[in-house]
Amino acid sequence: MQNNSQSSKEMNYSPTFNFPVQIYYEDTDFSGVVYHPNFLKYFERAREHVIGADILASLWDEYGLGFAVYRSDMLCHDGVEFADIIDVRTRFYFESKYRTVWQQEIWRPNAKKPAVTASIEMICMNKKRQLAPMSPELLEHLSQSFPTGINL
Amino acid sequence: MQNNSQSSKEMNYSPTFNFPVQIYYEDTDFSGVVYHPNFLKYFERAREHVIGADILASLWDEYGLGFAVYRSDMLCHDGVEFADIIDVRTRFYFESKYRTVWQQEIWRPNAKKPAVTASIEMICMNKKRQLAPMSPELLEHLSQSFPTGINL
Amino acid sequence: MQNNSQSSKEMNYSPTFNFPVQIYYEDTDFSGVVYHPNFLKYFERAREHVIGADILASLWDEYGLGFAVYRSDMLCHDGVEFADIIDVRTRFYFESKYRTVWQQEIWRPNAKKPAVTASIEMICMNKKRQLAPMSPELLEHLSQSFPTGINL
Amino acid sequence: MQNNSQSSKEMNYSPTFNFPVQIYYEDTDFSGVVYHPNFLKYFERAREHVIGADILASLWDEYGLGFAVYRSDMLCHDGVEFADIIDVRTRFYFESKYRTVWQQEIWRPNAKKPAVTASIEMICMNKKRQLAPMSPELLEHLSQSFPTGINL
Repeated sequence: MQNNSQSSKEMNYSPTFNFPVQIYYEDTDFSGVVYHPNFLKYFERAREHVIGADILASLWDEYGLGFAVYRSDMLCHDGVEFADIIDVRTRFYFESKYRTVWQQEIWRPNAKKPAVTASIEMICMNKKRQLAPMSPELLEHLSQSFPTGINL
Repeated sequence: MQNNSQSSKEMNYSPTFNFPVQIYYEDTDFSGVVYHPNFLKYFERAREHVIGADILASLWDEYGLGFAVYRSDMLCHDGVEFADIIDVRTRFYFESKYRTVWQQEIWRPNAKKPAVTASIEMICMNKKRQLAPMSPELLEHLSQSFPTGINL
Repeated sequence: MQNNSQSSKEMNYSPTFNFPVQIYYEDTDFSGVVYHPNFLKYFERAREHVIGADILASLWDEYGLGFAVYRSDMLCHDGVEFADIIDVRTRFYFESKYRTVWQQEIWRPNAKKPAVTASIEMICMNKKRQLAPMSPELLEHLSQSFPTGINL
Repeated sequence: MQNNSQSSKEMNYSPTFNFPVQIYYEDTDFSGVVYHPNFLKYFERAREHVIGADILASLWDEYGLGFAVYRSDMLCHDGVEFADIIDVRTRFYFESKYRTVWQQEIWRPNAKKPAVTASIEMICMNKKRQLAPMSPELLEHLSQSFPTGINL
């Protein structure tokens, strides 16, 4: 059944990865806090660290494959300020060989709840921007993050 | 009933506003198309033109009020390229005196469907980042966009 | 003599082009004014309008040629604020078939002197990032801006 | 004599500080390398680490003082690519209680010469954007970077 399959995928999340980001002048706007589109930048930086920037670079150069954000649904609960060092928390699961879903959060220092939460869907594309399956090497590499492996 | 109330608000959309944005070097990344967080910038520029940048500046300076994005749910259907002049289409409705909901789309030249679609919730806040009602002057100003006015 | 040659080139400036830029939230930082690297963005947008974004796109796609900033020397005399509509003033001359030099200024509304001034050197490069002469078509196109033509 | 005074100041440089920056999607443009205004961002991040972001935040909040870039003169010798981890090298000297001058360079991994070099003048300003002397605490803090202290 679709639903069972879906829920089992969602249950097979990666562990949570932590990635620190320092907030600089460039990140803020005149309202005094971080300009909201920048949160999507921090989420992407954190995903690049989970996957590995060198892996992404060679995926593009050797296979002509890259990831694109298909959907981003973001909730901003609290402002983030200059000089904050935030903790970007990231976990993800495989929806298919074409698609991964990422749950990401931004935590301010000593906070009791996240300042920003997001669900982000990434798809794998070739250089013509057509949907393409991830390479076996990439799947193998990413599956190492999952204690019980992945089953696609 | 909640549902009827909700749907009547949704039915009371503003007209659609059109706003052109030219895509420059700064907007793209090495994959060759627009870097996805930038779409949130174009949506904000378009909202600022609907509201009026001078209105927003005086709202902040005189009333200590500003708008913050509470939620942005964005779907990226197609890549947008350097030198494109996109059409950002915007319409919105009032959820309450504190909250507006914006439906926004990005259309490439001669496209048959939008490249990007988004639903964005804006809340009104004071300088302490507490929820605050929009000023009567602002409500009056914005209601001029609605043929049958707004009823909050 | 080198010096005479140099000064005659400098005397053969293009006319001044005017390009308006509106300042949005994204342009400012928490100090309340435009974040200084953004001025380089506005200067580039203005140059793209002088050259033509479609010209630049086809130069890249058909000839594999693009422009790169080799040097930018910028002086910031005054802050620029949210909601300002600035006037970017641009004129340039040809140093050689490989190099153009641009004098650019940012003027706030009703200002008596420029808020920002810059001298920017652009070089023409191929996709391997090697110095390359501008194509005859590009030179022909750009020379139309010069009342007495250019002589390289 | 002016000249001697000038040269003795220039001779009293701080040690060189090293600061790593990883290049993400957001940093590049469709030409495949880093978009040039972003280099000014990396230089600023590096300066903020030399001074201390918490020092800058309290300087603003408690004294109403901040730094502004008065002049930036940048030379771009080489392109910087996605996934590079660059080394931003920074040293500076005091021109006066109002002004510091920073020599900054960007080095790609294993490079034999810098990809980007810059000379950047920073001035201290109050919230009305008037020139203001650095606070004694800030001077004391910054002078700790100088083996032989500073003499203003």
